[in-house]
Amino acid sequence: MELSQRGTKMGGLSGIRSIMEDIALAARDASGGTWLNLSPGNPAAIPEVTRAWQELYEETLAERFARSSTQYGPSRGSEEFVDAIVRYFNSRYGWGISARNVLVGAGCQMLCFIATTLFTGPYTEGSRRLVLPCVPDYTGYTGLSMEVSGTVGVAGRVVREEGRAFHYRVDLDAVRRQEAMGMMLLSSPGNPTGRGIREDELAGLIDIAVERDVPLLIDHAYGEPFPGVAQDEVAPLLHPNVINCFTLSKAGLPAERLGFAIGSEDIIDAMVSFTANSYLHAPQLAQATAARAMNTGVLDRLSDSVIRPYYRRKRQVAEKLLHERLPESVDWRLHSSDGGMFCWLWIDHDWFDDLALYEELKRRKMFIVPGRNFFVEPFASPAQAAHGRRCVRLSLTPDESVIGEGISRLAQAVQEMSHAD
Amino acid sequence: MELSQRGTKMGGLSGIRSIMEDIALAARDASGGTWLNLSPGNPAAIPEVTRAWQELYEETLAERFARSSTQYGPSRGSEEFVDAIVRYFNSRYGWGISARNVLVGAGCQMLCFIATTLFTGPYTEGSRRLVLPCVPDYTGYTGLSMEVSGTVGVAGRVVREEGRAFHYRVDLDAVRRQEAMGMMLLSSPGNPTGRGIREDELAGLIDIAVERDVPLLIDHAYGEPFPGVAQDEVAPLLHPNVINCFTLSKAGLPAERLGFAIGSEDIIDAMVSFTANSYLHAPQLAQATAARAMNTGVLDRLSDSVIRPYYRRKRQVAEKLLHERLPESVDWRLHSSDGGMFCWLWIDHDWFDDLALYEELKRRKMFIVPGRNFFVEPFASPAQAAHGRRCVRLSLTPDESVIGEGISRLAQAVQEMSHAD
Repeated sequence: MELSQRGTKMGGLSGIRSIMEDIALAARDASGGTWLNLSPGNPAAIPEVTRAWQELYEETLAERFARSSTQYGPSRGSEEFVDAIVRYFNSRYGWGISARNVLVGAGCQMLCFIATTLFTGPYTEGSRRLVLPCVPDYTGYTGLSMEVSGTVGVAGRVVREEGRAFHYRVDLDAVRRQEAMGMMLLSSPGNPTGRGIREDELAGLIDIAVERDVPLLIDHAYGEPFPGVAQDEVAPLLHPNVINCFTLSKAGLPAERLGFAIGSEDIIDAMVSFTANSYLHAPQLAQATAARAMNTGVLDRLSDSVIRPYYRRKRQVAEKLLHERLPESVDWRLHSSDGGMFCWLWIDHDWFDDLALYEELKRRKMFIVPGRNFFVEPFASPAQAAHGRRCVRLSLTPDESVIGEGISRLAQAVQEMSHAD
Repeated sequence: MELSQRGTKMGGLSGIRSIMEDIALAARDASGGTWLNLSPGNPAAIPEVTRAWQELYEETLAERFARSSTQYGPSRGSEEFVDAIVRYFNSRYGWGISARNVLVGAGCQMLCFIATTLFTGPYTEGSRRLVLPCVPDYTGYTGLSMEVSGTVGVAGRVVREEGRAFHYRVDLDAVRRQEAMGMMLLSSPGNPTGRGIREDELAGLIDIAVERDVPLLIDHAYGEPFPGVAQDEVAPLLHPNVINCFTLSKAGLPAERLGFAIGSEDIIDAMVSFTANSYLHAPQLAQATAARAMNTGVLDRLSDSVIRPYYRRKRQVAEKLLHERLPESVDWRLHSSDGGMFCWLWIDHDWFDDLALYEELKRRKMFIVPGRNFFVEPFASPAQAAHGRRCVRLSLTPDESVIGEGISRLAQAVQEMSHAD
């Protein structure tokens, strides 16, 4: 049966999902050997975090299962959870938001999908696009738009730092040149880079959003206030054009699909209606549990004293191993981290290719994610395309021993690729 | 900020949702008196059902919280739940489906939304519409399409039965006359009518689906195999053009938003990709719990020995009271029920108006749902519009005492409306 035009887009998988499927299939292959998987976007299984969430669920279940789960709830989110969010953010950041500024969703991806659908696509004057103002960025963003060419990525400017470090800066001029912009969307701290948006960059993007009268969605999946995997505590910013999205996924609950958006009333109202029309509301047992985690301070405690230090340590270990084991003669650089759960590695040689490394490592029973998936094709220039194919993402969530052994195999593979040249 | 064309449609609320909001607001009003609410689409709070689900959740939580909830899952659904569905349907109905035929979703509404988005809207040759082949039908269906005139309802043919009964038949000729059809969608047993699709009607709709090469989605929310609130056990039908959707909502778990679709591989594959692109996957603790409910037989036991008899008794009580209390002189009729959780009342007089009755009952601190919301505007003819405004929906989920007192107030209001004429 023929799919509609948007069905053809939404009913197909983006590159990263094919890779993920490849990984799932290969990893299930029982033909021997243990796979080292440095690809996961999944947060680490930290026993203390899992235990805390399990206890919170047990309490919710015992105290209020009937109230939570046997009745349809409001599309905006359960009153209890919305109230908890309002109190938490007003108290932590001195905001003056009310329930009208909040929407709970079935995960942050769903909130991004809703906003993209509301603010991009056909307008009377033509089609507007989703603009990712600083790629590389989260690969799932390219799946959101219903139009085949509905997403454009503006490449971050590469800034080389001392030693082996580098980072991307938002190229505000290039963002400003984008035509037919419907919405901007970025993660901060970013997946895959760990780049945190700087104050001046955020101000610049907000200026553009105001000029164009479009929303800027900031996805705080890894950052403040939870799980708080960020170098500096940079408070989210309240602004009429900004939609701030948060999720419980990286605070330990990825599979329960719970996130929320905070924004101006008109935007949030439209998103609430979309929710009502498409899937009614987010699951309620998870909402009741999350409200409890916020109200009791457990969520803050987990973020501050368990999750944040955990990833900081993992990052230090990985950095040290990369410096020790990657070939001295190779021009490799690591994106300096403001937070997040990944290492973003750039190997700047003609002989390097991210997919070739992926295949080579697969032969060595190891997975990483090829860098090109975090850009948006077509690339704006051959130089950008070349750069995108010279990067790979490593995850910080596997056990330290896996990260260690993985980096060794990676170093060997890179060494051999450089010699084969 | 301006919404896109589809955003304008999806960011607004359909009539029924405004009514629901009105009901929520009025009911929250503390100014005194107890409201009788005969409007809910919510299933009844049956203590035995709630207790069973709570126990199932407790077991899942204790045994496998870490596995369920702390890792992203497959977009198709957790392997365990998908396997449970495959085994259950193959064993119960002798089907030969595999995991490739199954998609678990964040509720049945979401599955309907996905299918509608994939198969309606812009095609190369023009726009295709969602066709509801027998209205009145579930009011939420009109919120699914992203196009303002993207949904068309074909009125069922009214068949008067003996005494006070009537029912709708699918008007296959009228369905066949629909142009630009992208998908058909209906609930069976139906909300609001309780109408179950007959074998010959289903065969006729499948013929049309095959001729047009479009899917026919059947929403079994109230029927077989669970919660099984149907007069006769009519097995769902497996056919390449049919998408069968099922939900746990009416089996006691509405707030956890879990449903699944069974259909041909090509359709399901596209729906899985849509899921991956838009919200990743359905929540996993609920999936693990639902798998347990299926595998242990608890779901069947609840359906057969608790839920089905419960609604059958409620329906008998309501029917008896309507016959006893509604004015003899008024030409009222009740849709004969093949199942479901509602009474659909038709008061065939010029002086009757569903919204007027809604307002009149609100003054008496009681809620019903006006009938017009279950049709699709614009009506195909003045006669159909007149009919749509002469119907109301009563819910069977409130306590018997509420249903009794509610029907008394309804009878008085109708009596007075008839005298005022």
